[in-house]
Amino acid sequence: MVDRQFLLSPKQMPRKWYNIAADIGPTPPPLNPATQQPCGPQDLAAIFPDPIIMQEVSTDKWIDIPEEVLDILAMWRPTPLYRATRLEAALGTPAKIYYKYEGTSPAGSHKPNTAIAQAYYNKISGVKRLATETGAGQWGCALSLATQMFGLECTVYMVKVSYQQKPYRKSLINAWGANIFASPSENTSYGRKVLAEDPDCPGSLGIAISEAIEDTVTSKDTKYALGSVSNHVLLHQTIIGQEAKLQMEMAGAYPDVVIGCVGGGSNFAGIAFPYLEDKMSGKSPNLRAVAVEPKSCASLSTGEYRYDFGDTAQMTPLFMMYTLGCEFVPPSIHAGGLRYHGMAPLVSLAFHKKLIEAMSYPQTAIFPAAVLFARTEGIVPAPESSHAIKCAIDEALAAKETGEPKTILFNLSGHGHFDMGAYDMYFSGKMTDAG
Amino acid sequence: MVDRQFLLSPKQMPRKWYNIAADIGPTPPPLNPATQQPCGPQDLAAIFPDPIIMQEVSTDKWIDIPEEVLDILAMWRPTPLYRATRLEAALGTPAKIYYKYEGTSPAGSHKPNTAIAQAYYNKISGVKRLATETGAGQWGCALSLATQMFGLECTVYMVKVSYQQKPYRKSLINAWGANIFASPSENTSYGRKVLAEDPDCPGSLGIAISEAIEDTVTSKDTKYALGSVSNHVLLHQTIIGQEAKLQMEMAGAYPDVVIGCVGGGSNFAGIAFPYLEDKMSGKSPNLRAVAVEPKSCASLSTGEYRYDFGDTAQMTPLFMMYTLGCEFVPPSIHAGGLRYHGMAPLVSLAFHKKLIEAMSYPQTAIFPAAVLFARTEGIVPAPESSHAIKCAIDEALAAKETGEPKTILFNLSGHGHFDMGAYDMYFSGKMTDAG
Repeated sequence: MVDRQFLLSPKQMPRKWYNIAADIGPTPPPLNPATQQPCGPQDLAAIFPDPIIMQEVSTDKWIDIPEEVLDILAMWRPTPLYRATRLEAALGTPAKIYYKYEGTSPAGSHKPNTAIAQAYYNKISGVKRLATETGAGQWGCALSLATQMFGLECTVYMVKVSYQQKPYRKSLINAWGANIFASPSENTSYGRKVLAEDPDCPGSLGIAISEAIEDTVTSKDTKYALGSVSNHVLLHQTIIGQEAKLQMEMAGAYPDVVIGCVGGGSNFAGIAFPYLEDKMSGKSPNLRAVAVEPKSCASLSTGEYRYDFGDTAQMTPLFMMYTLGCEFVPPSIHAGGLRYHGMAPLVSLAFHKKLIEAMSYPQTAIFPAAVLFARTEGIVPAPESSHAIKCAIDEALAAKETGEPKTILFNLSGHGHFDMGAYDMYFSGKMTDAG
Repeated sequence: MVDRQFLLSPKQMPRKWYNIAADIGPTPPPLNPATQQPCGPQDLAAIFPDPIIMQEVSTDKWIDIPEEVLDILAMWRPTPLYRATRLEAALGTPAKIYYKYEGTSPAGSHKPNTAIAQAYYNKISGVKRLATETGAGQWGCALSLATQMFGLECTVYMVKVSYQQKPYRKSLINAWGANIFASPSENTSYGRKVLAEDPDCPGSLGIAISEAIEDTVTSKDTKYALGSVSNHVLLHQTIIGQEAKLQMEMAGAYPDVVIGCVGGGSNFAGIAFPYLEDKMSGKSPNLRAVAVEPKSCASLSTGEYRYDFGDTAQMTPLFMMYTLGCEFVPPSIHAGGLRYHGMAPLVSLAFHKKLIEAMSYPQTAIFPAAVLFARTEGIVPAPESSHAIKCAIDEALAAKETGEPKTILFNLSGHGHFDMGAYDMYFSGKMTDAG
């Protein structure tokens, strides 16, 4: 019997986050949209508490994870790492495929890794309520869980198309006690403006971010929490890759290629950045890291590297990133968590420096990979995570062509329990690449 | 930081199942309904393969788990055991509450523990297809997963009210490639008979069992698989309690009371039987084991101990068990997995011998406990499992009254990701005890 499960004990949980900003070289600063000058910490004070701002601009290589955060993370971490022996056999590949599984969190994805940390830092800063946006709902679930754990209130603006496609993510957010609005909503002046122009607007992450930020800056004791893109969010996700490195050691393996899906970029950064440390330090110069995008919203593959707003209403600072333009409204694909016009500045910089690769797939290519995975490895994956599965399968099939015993590692960022409507659509034969 | 997570390594997974039939004394045999004589193995041959029949009638205390079964169980086992520190704090109880969490299986419940074993034994016996019934869908999901792992076909008859309440369990069954019918269905003569009498019949487990058995005995290369009740099913679930015992040792604790919800009885047996071994051997004579039922379908609490059929069409053997009568159709409560008129003969015998206790709750008492659990421990529980949570909370509150530092262990048999409609109903204030 081949070992297929690699588990760490709770005591092996990493105690520090890895900050790639310390190694990747000068990072273009965000700009104040009014002055076009680099943002100082004070520009972020309206939406983030001080400890988050300090992490956002930090160049310290290692940052301590507070005990209070570890205590909550220990509700499900360390997460398992598996070898996909049954998928390998189905593909007939000489490649070894490993995956880190983040779906064991109560919210079913990697998102609580940063939600817990953000809720904690807001709590100790005296904040009473957090406002946020969510695409497919994973982030809204994660933040409602996290705020509940620390006794904070929470308001979630959920992209309307996902609110309708995934009603039970909304129920889950309710179960954890947060308030939720379909975005664009009547709850903000920006939401009302969008609805006046297009009452049927399906929403987008960019629009929902604008609503959450407006709610934040117009309310008392309220701060904003972001589920991806920002430096501090990517930082908090590096616990994934650090655990994975320990587990790959247990397996006696080191990856030739590390794969993650990208929307805003945080789960990819979580698994890849600790390996990029090795690549940058010369330990694994040939390691490949592949960011997998949906074809209909492929900011790395088809966007421009330039300063752009993080939201549609142009309320955020300008970030140096690969972008499709902040006014871009992606098609209503089922991988709602990947529908974002931009890309995390640190992931963008890594791509610009050719430290990582990017590729993209249409959703009609994603679901056959998801079903093959479910029928071999058992776990029904989220549509977002299935982009990484598809890429891992293609890498394994390429290895079959060349006979190369490649080692592949991907991040299975979440399960698909709240995405079964998408599977129904796929099985009905009615799914198109337009959404 | 108090340890709250107790994890075993894959190598610590139990290698044998515990068969309580060896210890509990003579068990009343099932009777052939035609002759009223004890069933021989040949009476079961129409629906079960030989290795399953041998387990059903075995009085060997320990039965080896085949390597092929362990290999698939290792996709998610060993499962975690947690200390509910945050729930304890919310209750202000001196009691220590531990729970074994079976929701990490791909199907989200304990059911795959036996589904994998049954699929394996059918596979090596040359069977090509399994037919089964499912209540809330957990068992149907588990068997479709298991048959997919071993390359068998699968047909699932799902109780109609659950088919309608929980559409995404149906989607999950589809994702793993099984065929599924809402029961009563037009696919069997018994289903057609029921529909002719009552076209709006919500179905019941008893009716669905009749359909699955009819499908089995009228088809080639087809056997039947049962998700609870039978001796071999309870046997396969004892891996839960054996792991829990190792994990409680890691925690330096031994339970005063072990709690599980009961429908057919298998998850309760899974956690409790290995502890009943200790009780019967004199190691823990004062250990209490509590089976928790829904008030509207409380076979132990309100049924009679007598021979009765396992199904509504009276096609199965007669079992000596606590029963509400095989023609009883329970109200359409949200804990669909507990809607069964009878109780596993081995659980019934343990209750008859006063080795275990029983209690029951209406569903309006269950959901507040479920929400408290979600908001403290993070995991959103299945309505079925929430019966055990409610009982654990009441035991902890009783300990608070008396000041007793009681140790409580319960089985959290599954998550509620496919039960969010029930939570919506609860939050809407429209839930009643009638369903």
